[in-house]
Amino acid sequence: TSVEVTRDKQAVNVLVLVADDLGFELNSYGNNVIRTPHISQLAHRSTRYVNAFTTVSSCSPSRSTILSGLPEHQNGMYGLHNGYHHFESFDGVQSLSKLLKSGGVRTGIIGKKHVAPLEVYPFDFAETEENNSILQVGRNITHMKQLTENFFKTQPSNMPFFLYIGFHDPHRCGHTHPEYGVFCEKFGNGEPKMGQIVDWKPEYYSTDEVVVPPFVQDTIATRQDLSAQYTTISRLDQGVGLIIKELTKAGHLNNTMVILTSDNGIPFLNGRTNLYKSGRSEPFLVSIPTKKETWGKTEDTSVSLLDITPTVLDWFGLQYPDYKLLGRDVKLTGKSLLKKYVTSTVYGSHSLHEVTMYYPMRSIQQDNFTLIQNLNYLMPFPIDQDFYISPAFQDILNRTIIGQETHWFKTLKDYYYRSPVELYDLANDPLEKNNLALDPVYADTKSILETKLKLWQDITWDPWRCAPDGVLEDAGPYASKPVCMPLHNEL
Amino acid sequence: TSVEVTRDKQAVNVLVLVADDLGFELNSYGNNVIRTPHISQLAHRSTRYVNAFTTVSSCSPSRSTILSGLPEHQNGMYGLHNGYHHFESFDGVQSLSKLLKSGGVRTGIIGKKHVAPLEVYPFDFAETEENNSILQVGRNITHMKQLTENFFKTQPSNMPFFLYIGFHDPHRCGHTHPEYGVFCEKFGNGEPKMGQIVDWKPEYYSTDEVVVPPFVQDTIATRQDLSAQYTTISRLDQGVGLIIKELTKAGHLNNTMVILTSDNGIPFLNGRTNLYKSGRSEPFLVSIPTKKETWGKTEDTSVSLLDITPTVLDWFGLQYPDYKLLGRDVKLTGKSLLKKYVTSTVYGSHSLHEVTMYYPMRSIQQDNFTLIQNLNYLMPFPIDQDFYISPAFQDILNRTIIGQETHWFKTLKDYYYRSPVELYDLANDPLEKNNLALDPVYADTKSILETKLKLWQDITWDPWRCAPDGVLEDAGPYASKPVCMPLHNEL
Ligand SMILES: [Ca+2]
Ligand SMILES: [Ca+2]
Ligand SMILES: [Mg+2]
Ligand SMILES: [Mg+2]
Repeated sequence: TSVEVTRDKQAVNVLVLVADDLGFELNSYGNNVIRTPHISQLAHRSTRYVNAFTTVSSCSPSRSTILSGLPEHQNGMYGLHNGYHHFESFDGVQSLSKLLKSGGVRTGIIGKKHVAPLEVYPFDFAETEENNSILQVGRNITHMKQLTENFFKTQPSNMPFFLYIGFHDPHRCGHTHPEYGVFCEKFGNGEPKMGQIVDWKPEYYSTDEVVVPPFVQDTIATRQDLSAQYTTISRLDQGVGLIIKELTKAGHLNNTMVILTSDNGIPFLNGRTNLYKSGRSEPFLVSIPTKKETWGKTEDTSVSLLDITPTVLDWFGLQYPDYKLLGRDVKLTGKSLLKKYVTSTVYGSHSLHEVTMYYPMRSIQQDNFTLIQNLNYLMPFPIDQDFYISPAFQDILNRTIIGQETHWFKTLKDYYYRSPVELYDLANDPLEKNNLALDPVYADTKSILETKLKLWQDITWDPWRCAPDGVLEDAGPYASKPVCMPLHNEL
Repeated sequence: TSVEVTRDKQAVNVLVLVADDLGFELNSYGNNVIRTPHISQLAHRSTRYVNAFTTVSSCSPSRSTILSGLPEHQNGMYGLHNGYHHFESFDGVQSLSKLLKSGGVRTGIIGKKHVAPLEVYPFDFAETEENNSILQVGRNITHMKQLTENFFKTQPSNMPFFLYIGFHDPHRCGHTHPEYGVFCEKFGNGEPKMGQIVDWKPEYYSTDEVVVPPFVQDTIATRQDLSAQYTTISRLDQGVGLIIKELTKAGHLNNTMVILTSDNGIPFLNGRTNLYKSGRSEPFLVSIPTKKETWGKTEDTSVSLLDITPTVLDWFGLQYPDYKLLGRDVKLTGKSLLKKYVTSTVYGSHSLHEVTMYYPMRSIQQDNFTLIQNLNYLMPFPIDQDFYISPAFQDILNRTIIGQETHWFKTLKDYYYRSPVELYDLANDPLEKNNLALDPVYADTKSILETKLKLWQDITWDPWRCAPDGVLEDAGPYASKPVCMPLHNEL
């Protein structure tokens, strides 16, 4: 059960720290090799959730769920916002930052935003990739510290604040800025042409010591990749320390709820862009300074990133409005973590990552069972531009082509070609190796999960809820009672 | 060869008439049953192009190509704009209406716009679905006449104008307003609850007399559908007459170039949403009042809707600017029809219609050969909400299910499941029945077409140009020399 909080005059602000593509390479989540003391320090003042999940393992879509409380299929951010991908939320979305603004809360964002349009996601104070270099506002932790200091210096004393920090670490870098290393692990390390981030003391790790997650191949290429990722995580960790220090300097450490999480799984096989558990699971810390009895606790109730919007609104005593989006009633399906509640159910909804990467999937996890529907399953699972050129993916590709041992528990072919429905027993099969979807023993489980998932899709007005074998009719005479009609297309 | 025009002081304005889902159900294109005297009258003052094609058989994407001169994959309008489909062109697109505005031309739009954002497609005078009922501005021809009169009344005498009329006829209606009939053929006919469009005299046709196009099934359901469509076309035809009358009243008949075309193929099987010839072919009339020698001529040079932007710019003596979109040089690949040129090559690029209908296709037609690449071909061809509930589609669906004779030259299964590459000899196989893609006799033809298509995709920066078996790397070190890298995904 979650903590119950009575808001008081002292506990007035919110700080949300979102890492980019961070997994469980953290001391506070059981990794004893990596050195992440600043996040550990925050964890000591926090409740640590061990069953937290994003609904979608892709940057813009996930961030849109954090900042709107609505799944990607409901808020319109079906894929990445940047460049020719060009996805945006619907104009009518009542986002968290919009509701806070009109509720009298000062809003700030520093670092990676990656959601749009501006009118839907307005912030009073904004230093993002929209008006800065993403490397400077998202990875240069000294600069981020200074921007945070500016935010606090300009904070009116008679207003609460909501500050959202979007670290770009530990995102990959090889796609856009390979000169700084595959994870930008050299950016600002003081070496020639790398620049100097004065507050960062890079931590280095040998390929022998890094911990290879069980869902990826244990090869030297992966270990080199992880070693670079670990170094970049040291910049994230020290950045978190700097931000908390600014919070403290500004006198807000004890009146600010702090949430730390990540947008999606690590950029390795089975991670980012997947709805496997390895792609959906996120670290999730909630620090409530006035409730010391919640510090250091571990919570296993399931949490969704969809819960952030209702939690923050609840913190500020604000209601989510009654309104319609594209003519349909909007209801949040996440819950405030400030209220006592227990659930083991979380949903997933992914449609695209890059605009060319159409691979809609819907999922539900409940009581250790997870069900994934792959709606474009006859086509191969797509690979993004960033991951494709990574050492880890090139390693699997090359090993597969030349017939070398991959040291991976599945084949690239299995990864590309997926079943229409996947059902896994996470308790006995944490790697999701054994698909039970066609096993009659689990027919009831499957049916229960499918029914519940469909209900969630109905409530959240999922345009894909009849795909791939039906057409959704929801206009004219069907506007108030949408129906799925069969295509008889052999699926 | 096309007409060569020397612009003079008298020939200063442009009127573009775009019908919605219109095919060749016109007297001036060989249909002797339907009665379309007003379009015939315009045709008598026009050059009639008999090889005109849209690049994409879908409303918003096609209209974005008309108004930007760029294919959908380059301007960003990958699918429909309305509702949860939510596609929009990139902010940086220098559209026709924007260029005309800054070139001193007054711009007006009446009727269906269906492109966005507003900043990319601004008009000085705008009465569209954005600020009106689409039925009133797109189908109520009396209202459209009045709006046109208003446009001319407010036209400064010292400025040329560009007026774009987006008829919503003869689009289907059964999806949104079935109360007016499947093609809105009853809307405004004076019957109870239908309202009265005072200028419209509906024309009626028996199911016996309508002409069934060879690419659809000849059944009573199709004939009923066509009969309704013909009646709606009578409203379009009379609407064209009313607009031309307003043009005449305003004294501009003899100083205005008039272009009449449609955005996409008819909403029947093999039509709209397809890149078969039946989905791409459009009526295309160009009336240049000062060049009577061009009246009544038939031109067989190939024309693309991408040619409209360069033609209109040329008419006004305006240059297309040198600029970059998302960091890449933009070059128009269409040509001004005011210059003498002959080509038999046209391209096609379709990515989505509804957001759930991902079915990217690329095509090239040249010298009577047409090549279509189906990039999501392992999945069934998708059916849109509007067409699904139409009598014509329900007819094929039901006949297929119960095993009845379909009276169609292909099966629904063939329609759903397509080859990765289709190659047809249009001279000998106008219905595109016999796929020559694997015939060694046509290997050279196929290779030539593929090479030329790829070149066009490169020039127009197609994000899909490596799909479905490769990843496009075009950032970081590949920004200036993009490459396709292989996925080895068995495609
Ligand atoms: Ca991310
Ligand atoms: Ca249309
Ligand atoms: Mg929008
Ligand atoms: Mg935009």
